[in-house]
Amino acid sequence: MVSFRLCNPTEILFGSGQIARLSDLIAPGTKVFLLYGGGSIKRNGVYDQVMAALSRCEVVERGGIEVNPVYETILNARDLARRSGSELVLAVGGGSVVDAGKFLATIIPLDVADPWDHLASGKPAGKTLPVGAILTLPATGSESNPVSVISSRERHLKIPFANEAARPRFAILDPDTMASLDKRQLQNGVVDAFTHVVEQYLTTPVNTPVQYGFSEVILQVLIEWGPRLVEKNDAEARENIMWAANQALNGLVGAGVPQDWSTHMIGHAITALYDIDHARTLSMVMPALMRFKSKDKQAMLARYARRVWQIDEPDADKAAEEAIRRTEDFFRRMGCPVRLSDATPVEIAADDVVAHLERAGQTALGERHDIGTTEVREILKLAA
Amino acid sequence: MVSFRLCNPTEILFGSGQIARLSDLIAPGTKVFLLYGGGSIKRNGVYDQVMAALSRCEVVERGGIEVNPVYETILNARDLARRSGSELVLAVGGGSVVDAGKFLATIIPLDVADPWDHLASGKPAGKTLPVGAILTLPATGSESNPVSVISSRERHLKIPFANEAARPRFAILDPDTMASLDKRQLQNGVVDAFTHVVEQYLTTPVNTPVQYGFSEVILQVLIEWGPRLVEKNDAEARENIMWAANQALNGLVGAGVPQDWSTHMIGHAITALYDIDHARTLSMVMPALMRFKSKDKQAMLARYARRVWQIDEPDADKAAEEAIRRTEDFFRRMGCPVRLSDATPVEIAADDVVAHLERAGQTALGERHDIGTTEVREILKLAA
Repeated sequence: MVSFRLCNPTEILFGSGQIARLSDLIAPGTKVFLLYGGGSIKRNGVYDQVMAALSRCEVVERGGIEVNPVYETILNARDLARRSGSELVLAVGGGSVVDAGKFLATIIPLDVADPWDHLASGKPAGKTLPVGAILTLPATGSESNPVSVISSRERHLKIPFANEAARPRFAILDPDTMASLDKRQLQNGVVDAFTHVVEQYLTTPVNTPVQYGFSEVILQVLIEWGPRLVEKNDAEARENIMWAANQALNGLVGAGVPQDWSTHMIGHAITALYDIDHARTLSMVMPALMRFKSKDKQAMLARYARRVWQIDEPDADKAAEEAIRRTEDFFRRMGCPVRLSDATPVEIAADDVVAHLERAGQTALGERHDIGTTEVREILKLAA
Repeated sequence: MVSFRLCNPTEILFGSGQIARLSDLIAPGTKVFLLYGGGSIKRNGVYDQVMAALSRCEVVERGGIEVNPVYETILNARDLARRSGSELVLAVGGGSVVDAGKFLATIIPLDVADPWDHLASGKPAGKTLPVGAILTLPATGSESNPVSVISSRERHLKIPFANEAARPRFAILDPDTMASLDKRQLQNGVVDAFTHVVEQYLTTPVNTPVQYGFSEVILQVLIEWGPRLVEKNDAEARENIMWAANQALNGLVGAGVPQDWSTHMIGHAITALYDIDHARTLSMVMPALMRFKSKDKQAMLARYARRVWQIDEPDADKAAEEAIRRTEDFFRRMGCPVRLSDATPVEIAADDVVAHLERAGQTALGERHDIGTTEVREILKLAA
């Protein structure tokens, strides 16, 4: 029997011009802590739209959130947020800024000077400030889920933190904000969303045909519209990728489904150690994971081959290999590497990746918890 | 450009044994108004499970909610709920009981003696009591949406009322509760859920491939698992139909999509006038509506033919007709009539149906608001 809890209270406003509706979502007089990244929102008009909608609020702002948001930067932002009495965190940007905003909202009221270990060890977050998100780069689904992935420079670690109270109260998804993104950002977003679905889909099969069917729809939309987004970046492609990436990781397709996040955990280690784009670590690791686990994943690989790639091949092994090959082709078409050697001239050392996973407590990965350090070394060999 | 607002805060607990978790959802000491239907929950063990989980609450109960819940019955329940100071309405049953519970929660605090006209004219509901739902018959999706369909005996009307505040705070979906349902209840549930999806899918096409794909998944699950549910009523079929029916009408597949609820509105009139099961009115009206609107719906009918029924027919008219024929076959397989004359020996008078729609203010139906009384007469002729 399948059992699950599913609750996603994030209020989503999707479409062109929706940023103006911020003024309906945040009460006048609210002390808003506005968080953003490298400053592109000041060049593409998003910042001006946000500030116009917040004209009746007290806004304190802090930019400079990195791609793969850094713990030490967020700790620093906490000091400013506390001094200014912030009541709500508004994250304006892509998944990194939203992740940072959720983590910041978690630690502002938390009476722990250096809360990394407190939160990493699963101790309660306590009171959390409300969070709102204005998404400008679809990829992570962070705008309506409870997870943040945070990197600590001091600890050389990149790990996920979950806090249900930090799930955004609202998320504004205006596809127009994507117009100024460069090809690499778009490619990375599509590949990230794709792997999110696969990590909730290519696992030990259970009786959830609705979830599996929804996963296949999202994958097909990403396959159909991802290349068009990169080539044309037109309104229709933006809409479809922005919505598909949200649905890819909001809890729905994973409800009641065994999940295997090993590609992400290995990928986080590689990003932390070698500063390679998140999506590009996933595109290198995932095909190798599929091959390494092709027996355990045989049933779902066969379904994936048939329903996502329309592969009409009765032999399960051949169908699986063909589906993996098509996945690699898709990643390559999205400008992403599928071998470690494609991504960096530096050798990616299995010892270092394994050490990161050990320090992060991620030594029993996969939905069967059977991907330990030995298995990770095998996967990295297959990805070499 | 597609725009929409989507927010579904209902906390869903899905799976066997979840009713016991009621005690986590309702605080001890809460004055609970327990609403149910004809008493089957007292025979199948659900009532005992609920009462055990509510042992620390003050429970006042009222049974007797009808299939197609009656306004006058709910008004009567309001008196009891007010006298007992109820703080939360817990609806235990199928869509009718949940609809009644949501309407009851709306009118308990409403200071209007006879609130039908007040609410029907769109005046605000004001404060609403929190609602919880324990679903025992999948069909309507009412357990996580804001709509109730209520019938007034005095007014000879069956119309929908929407109140966002009445959307259940939580919904427990335990497929085990379906074990004692009879074939006709199961058949009706599958057909009702099927038409919910079609009313949000076979309309003027827009750029929403995620929503359309999800709709097709739900339709395919209903087509595959509906007959098995009726034949075997086994655990897997129960799970899949219960979840598919929920997803069919929780706001997701209709987000940003033009919607055509004319089959439902005509069906409500027929139920109000001739006391025919809700689902069986839909199965009679929907194929006629598809044929009447086959030109306007041509693009989506072609997609429906291809993706839901795997019809490989290049001629759009032939593909549409074949898809409509398969839809009729499916309804028949689910024990439902596809012609008015199959359902009742009494002649269904177009004059009376049209008069009901006029009294309900439903004279510009369909996503283009172009289905008026003349068009309804044509549809009824095609359904004859």
